[in-house]
Amino acid sequence: MLPSLAERVRAGDVRAIARAISLIEDEAESAAGLVRDIFPHTGQTYLVGVTGPPGAGKSTLVDRLTTVTRAADETVGVICVDPTSPFTGGAILGDRLRMQAHAHDEQVFIRSMATRGHMGGLARATSDAALVLDAAGKSLVIIETVGVGQDEVDIVRTADISIVVLVPGTGDDVQALKAGIMEIADIFVVNKCDRDGADRMVTSIESNLALQAYGDGQWRPPIVKTEATTGHGVAELWATVQQFRAHSQSARTRRLKARNEFRLRDLLTHRFMEMVERDLLAAGEFDALVARIAAREVDPYTAASEILSRALKSRTK
Amino acid sequence: MLPSLAERVRAGDVRAIARAISLIEDEAESAAGLVRDIFPHTGQTYLVGVTGPPGAGKSTLVDRLTTVTRAADETVGVICVDPTSPFTGGAILGDRLRMQAHAHDEQVFIRSMATRGHMGGLARATSDAALVLDAAGKSLVIIETVGVGQDEVDIVRTADISIVVLVPGTGDDVQALKAGIMEIADIFVVNKCDRDGADRMVTSIESNLALQAYGDGQWRPPIVKTEATTGHGVAELWATVQQFRAHSQSARTRRLKARNEFRLRDLLTHRFMEMVERDLLAAGEFDALVARIAAREVDPYTAASEILSRALKSRTK
Repeated sequence: MLPSLAERVRAGDVRAIARAISLIEDEAESAAGLVRDIFPHTGQTYLVGVTGPPGAGKSTLVDRLTTVTRAADETVGVICVDPTSPFTGGAILGDRLRMQAHAHDEQVFIRSMATRGHMGGLARATSDAALVLDAAGKSLVIIETVGVGQDEVDIVRTADISIVVLVPGTGDDVQALKAGIMEIADIFVVNKCDRDGADRMVTSIESNLALQAYGDGQWRPPIVKTEATTGHGVAELWATVQQFRAHSQSARTRRLKARNEFRLRDLLTHRFMEMVERDLLAAGEFDALVARIAAREVDPYTAASEILSRALKSRTK
Repeated sequence: MLPSLAERVRAGDVRAIARAISLIEDEAESAAGLVRDIFPHTGQTYLVGVTGPPGAGKSTLVDRLTTVTRAADETVGVICVDPTSPFTGGAILGDRLRMQAHAHDEQVFIRSMATRGHMGGLARATSDAALVLDAAGKSLVIIETVGVGQDEVDIVRTADISIVVLVPGTGDDVQALKAGIMEIADIFVVNKCDRDGADRMVTSIESNLALQAYGDGQWRPPIVKTEATTGHGVAELWATVQQFRAHSQSARTRRLKARNEFRLRDLLTHRFMEMVERDLLAAGEFDALVARIAAREVDPYTAASEILSRALKSRTK
């Protein structure tokens, strides 16, 4: 008998990994079964989340970090969460460019995710893709996100470590700090640190941190200056990641819980909606209801209640 | 009898509007009833979505646009979607600063939304707050979002018009274009157009647009150069908004449908999860299930299926 896709993924077969992630991205029927099969064999990977505003140089930084971690004998998977649509074609082109640096290294797998489904499709696909790389034996999985949306923050927030990359010289330090990513950072990176304003940005982050009370033994996010294009500071960044990892076993347990809770909630709502549209409502009924809402004949809260009471065993309030 | 909150909102009472939006932000029980009551009286507002990367000067631009539209006798509501947490306190501080410019104008209402609930809480709160301003008789509601996350893109994408604000000089034009917001723009704004690189950015957007095929009579997103700090170009931006409005009645109908569909889906899943946690599961059962997933005793797909079949009248596959 030929080995199943799950078995080939577990053996680290690069083409099987790519195929598995494509199934997940396409929300194929078979994706759920695949995740079921590999799930018992996951949980070993250390998950690194990297986020920051567009233009901060995250891609280059992650490439350099990959090189450094490979030298330290880690096996590495990279998932780049890029909400670029087929219009710009950025995701696929980006992958090709980025793969070149590690093209001859079987132990590095780089993949962009560009699914843009309803209701957190991207977050779901990303965390399932991380499971695939976990099952395939990657010791380190780096998830890199563009932007600061809620889905993306949720992805990074529940990683084992969250790295926030900022960049000086936009003239708007405060804007970067306003972006809602300050409080999720375990490590701050000020990238492009050769630019004017790098020290000012470090000071700015320091004053924000000073507003927080850190208890004895509590991790206080360090600030690492890097210049990703030359590789400057990247080894220090990796050393800092390892310090956090040694320091924060309890944080890891807490985040693993948050990750699994997020996943269960997301799956429940996603499959509930599938059931409503496929089994409960007649063809065209959902659209007709939306049209009645648009015409102000019914309000959305009442419409939702009616569907729920048809779907559920017990009536809800 | 005292007038109800919904009645006071409809009368345009500023304190009632503020109170109503707070109820929505806090996900108070009474918020659903409020939206039910005002819903039949909504649908008149023209909804303007403004998005772009942090540091693009969106806040200043929206302030200037408010001034211009007030001079044109529009009544204006502004909702600033800012995922800033209580840690930085940005939202509240920002509101106070921003309100000052329009402090003596009863016809302008400015509010930041900072809720960060599970599963699209921010998008739900934002669209309900827009309904409140709609019911209060604002002829124009501007929703301004920081960042490029999926929730935020969904908010802007389903507005009646979407304005994407970009800024030259970050040295990474391509990054801004990669941010997944290109294809939602009805109008591009290149703000801070006095900076070096403004013309290069315009060219860069033009070449992206050139990849798209626009049919006869189809709206081709124009590019407006502004300098929000001086107000330069803001009147032209407003004229362009009005051109789009006159041009695109069919687009408006389509987006109103998308908005209502988004709202119905979101409410359904949100209330389904409420029911699962409040009525279906015993106290602590959800957490216990999450712990079993973390321990790899059960996979999330199987766990979700079991909960679903307990909740639903008919079995799902």
